Amino acid sequence: MPEKNVDLHGSAPDKHKFALLLIDVINDLDFPEADQLLKHARPMARNLLRLKRRAQKAGVPVVYVNDNFGRWKSDFRRTVEHCAHHGRGREVVELLRPEENDYFVLKPKHSGFFSTALELLRYLEAQTLILSGIAGNFCVLFTANDAYMRDFNLFVPSDCTVSNTKKENDSALALMRKFLKADTRSSSQIALRAAQKNGQKRRGRRR
Amino acid sequence: MPEKNVDLHGSAPDKHKFALLLIDVINDLDFPEADQLLKHARPMARNLLRLKRRAQKAGVPVVYVNDNFGRWKSDFRRTVEHCAHHGRGREVVELLRPEENDYFVLKPKHSGFFSTALELLRYLEAQTLILSGIAGNFCVLFTANDAYMRDFNLFVPSDCTVSNTKKENDSALALMRKFLKADTRSSSQIALRAAQKNGQKRRGRRR
Amino acid sequence: MPEKNVDLHGSAPDKHKFALLLIDVINDLDFPEADQLLKHARPMARNLLRLKRRAQKAGVPVVYVNDNFGRWKSDFRRTVEHCAHHGRGREVVELLRPEENDYFVLKPKHSGFFSTALELLRYLEAQTLILSGIAGNFCVLFTANDAYMRDFNLFVPSDCTVSNTKKENDSALALMRKFLKADTRSSSQIALRAAQKNGQKRRGRRR
Amino acid sequence: MPEKNVDLHGSAPDKHKFALLLIDVINDLDFPEADQLLKHARPMARNLLRLKRRAQKAGVPVVYVNDNFGRWKSDFRRTVEHCAHHGRGREVVELLRPEENDYFVLKPKHSGFFSTALELLRYLEAQTLILSGIAGNFCVLFTANDAYMRDFNLFVPSDCTVSNTKKENDSALALMRKFLKADTRSSSQIALRAAQKNGQKRRGRRR
Repeated sequence: MPEKNVDLHGSAPDKHKFALLLIDVINDLDFPEADQLLKHARPMARNLLRLKRRAQKAGVPVVYVNDNFGRWKSDFRRTVEHCAHHGRGREVVELLRPEENDYFVLKPKHSGFFSTALELLRYLEAQTLILSGIAGNFCVLFTANDAYMRDFNLFVPSDCTVSNTKKENDSALALMRKFLKADTRSSSQIALRAAQKNGQKRRGRRR
Repeated sequence: MPEKNVDLHGSAPDKHKFALLLIDVINDLDFPEADQLLKHARPMARNLLRLKRRAQKAGVPVVYVNDNFGRWKSDFRRTVEHCAHHGRGREVVELLRPEENDYFVLKPKHSGFFSTALELLRYLEAQTLILSGIAGNFCVLFTANDAYMRDFNLFVPSDCTVSNTKKENDSALALMRKFLKADTRSSSQIALRAAQKNGQKRRGRRR
Repeated sequence: MPEKNVDLHGSAPDKHKFALLLIDVINDLDFPEADQLLKHARPMARNLLRLKRRAQKAGVPVVYVNDNFGRWKSDFRRTVEHCAHHGRGREVVELLRPEENDYFVLKPKHSGFFSTALELLRYLEAQTLILSGIAGNFCVLFTANDAYMRDFNLFVPSDCTVSNTKKENDSALALMRKFLKADTRSSSQIALRAAQKNGQKRRGRRR
Repeated sequence: MPEKNVDLHGSAPDKHKFALLLIDVINDLDFPEADQLLKHARPMARNLLRLKRRAQKAGVPVVYVNDNFGRWKSDFRRTVEHCAHHGRGREVVELLRPEENDYFVLKPKHSGFFSTALELLRYLEAQTLILSGIAGNFCVLFTANDAYMRDFNLFVPSDCTVSNTKKENDSALALMRKFLKADTRSSSQIALRAAQKNGQKRRGRRR
């Protein structure tokens, strides 16, 4: 249907220089090592919620990038309900439950960029991604690799990712700092106000 | 989360040599030329429903491949509800309303393969796609091009696609026959029983 | 090796708002229908050479997008030599032989965008593609579909593509005009001077 | 041109269950840390050459996956000549110089799968990749991540990759063992004879 699809302006996130990605936070944490991860997941979720609130105020698109737990049959809402009621992730899900204005992308595999519409972020105006979520040394790291390869600037705030152990999370953050040039400063140190200004300037420009 | 994602067996359609794709049938048909299209859309929907029932019986995965009408915020269920209650497509939507065992893939642009998980069908065992839906000379044709380029065998049953005019639909079918080697026989002539047998044999084999 | 790959500035075409794509012009035309195509191919090649010269003067990147005739073992130079000495395409190849400053992308299938680096054009500054080459109703059309889906503006100059028959070529041009919003004016009517100006302005801007 | 492109059988590596990938071994090693890497690169190249000879005997396709050093203008042959005569990598290049029957894929960025035809390996019969080359903790690791995500089984023989320091290489190998389930046994321990048998059986089967 041509008229709807001339471009993605009608079917994609608002344009902004920044985007905040929440990776696999809607999660039933139903795997053996989840016990130890869970201990760190709750404070992480509180930090991430604060960051999400600041992003919303600054007009930065908030994008959930999530496994769909249930083949190609589940939608995201069903995934959220499943995870909010089952498994050890429900406290995290309650804190980070998606809201009306959030975006979401269901990913079939580890990286948020693999076989999903996230690839299209680059066509929009996003230049800098803030990555967060579970697990820091797995799906966040895979997504960070792909984002770096696509020339995005990266923030991976150290207090907004969690892995099975703190040691593994620190080691993943060190990798992303060294090889992906990621800025891993704590979330409260990320200046979203500045981001918003640039975003607005860019929004005025015609492509 | 490694254990879930080692492969797609846990998150993708059942393996079968065939797959039936319903393209943009969940549609509000909210564009100027829809009047003339609608006349053909109702009988098409009835033919397609019969084909869907036969596919279900034969164990062929039924995959809805659909625009999402509403940016990256909408899920498929919301899209279905929207289209079932608004726009001129609601009779079609009622007939073809997705059921519990159907799969779906939201596409951001014209081709079902572009920036979606549909790409992964090829990794599974599907070798032959049956394409159907709206519009035959646009999103169905774009999807057919991409499927052909990925070496799928194609059926595009002539009574299960519709375009703004019959002439445009016939012309698209002729293109697909000539250049994409598509078989455009009428849906009732497609032997899904045979498909099932091959599919079962393949299913027994380890990859 | 990180330093080389931070972005594509060191490994991709110069930035320009336009790019001229020559599709499968390096071709041995070794197929049954080539006789009739060849008659139109020579004048097409002369028109395309004139357009190429104008593009070069205007600083528009000239990109050969070509099958590689010989599995993944051949390089483009070998393909050029093969086609310059064999097959019925050698006059066309002589006229359009790639030069030192031209770019090239080997494509494995019909569309220049499928499994090639051409996808990356969009990350650079190209917004408008001028498509040309052989055959207008096949590889040019497949590439045009993919370019349109990626939101490029399209020129497909009617005197710079050729198909087996004039009728088929006209019909492909009509399709691209109608569905892909392609501008099919004759090559001499494309104002490359204007393109250059915009290109230079954009080049001054930091990304 | 339809007849040539119906599938990739005519334009892609021979079918085999295995493929050996040599990543960025054609390299001018023109970066500050190359001194320390070079010390390990020569013995690595000798090990890799032995593995390549065994692969050739077993009918396993040998695929060079390489940066192109020179924008989209260079072909692989030119890259080989450049690196064979310049930079500190020339001894490695001499040992591993591509031969008539080898395949090659030019990659624009870190992973061999990103915007290249390598993606198509999966459509063929390859199920297991043997990854080797430079640098173990960078382009090899990026390629391994992408291969794992596409459900390939992985060998990354510990004596056929090299990074700036032995510590970094060991750490990358440990990552790939742990998270990508890679088998990092030494190259002499990989049973290519077995691979060949399976490969031949599969080759006999019709798709």
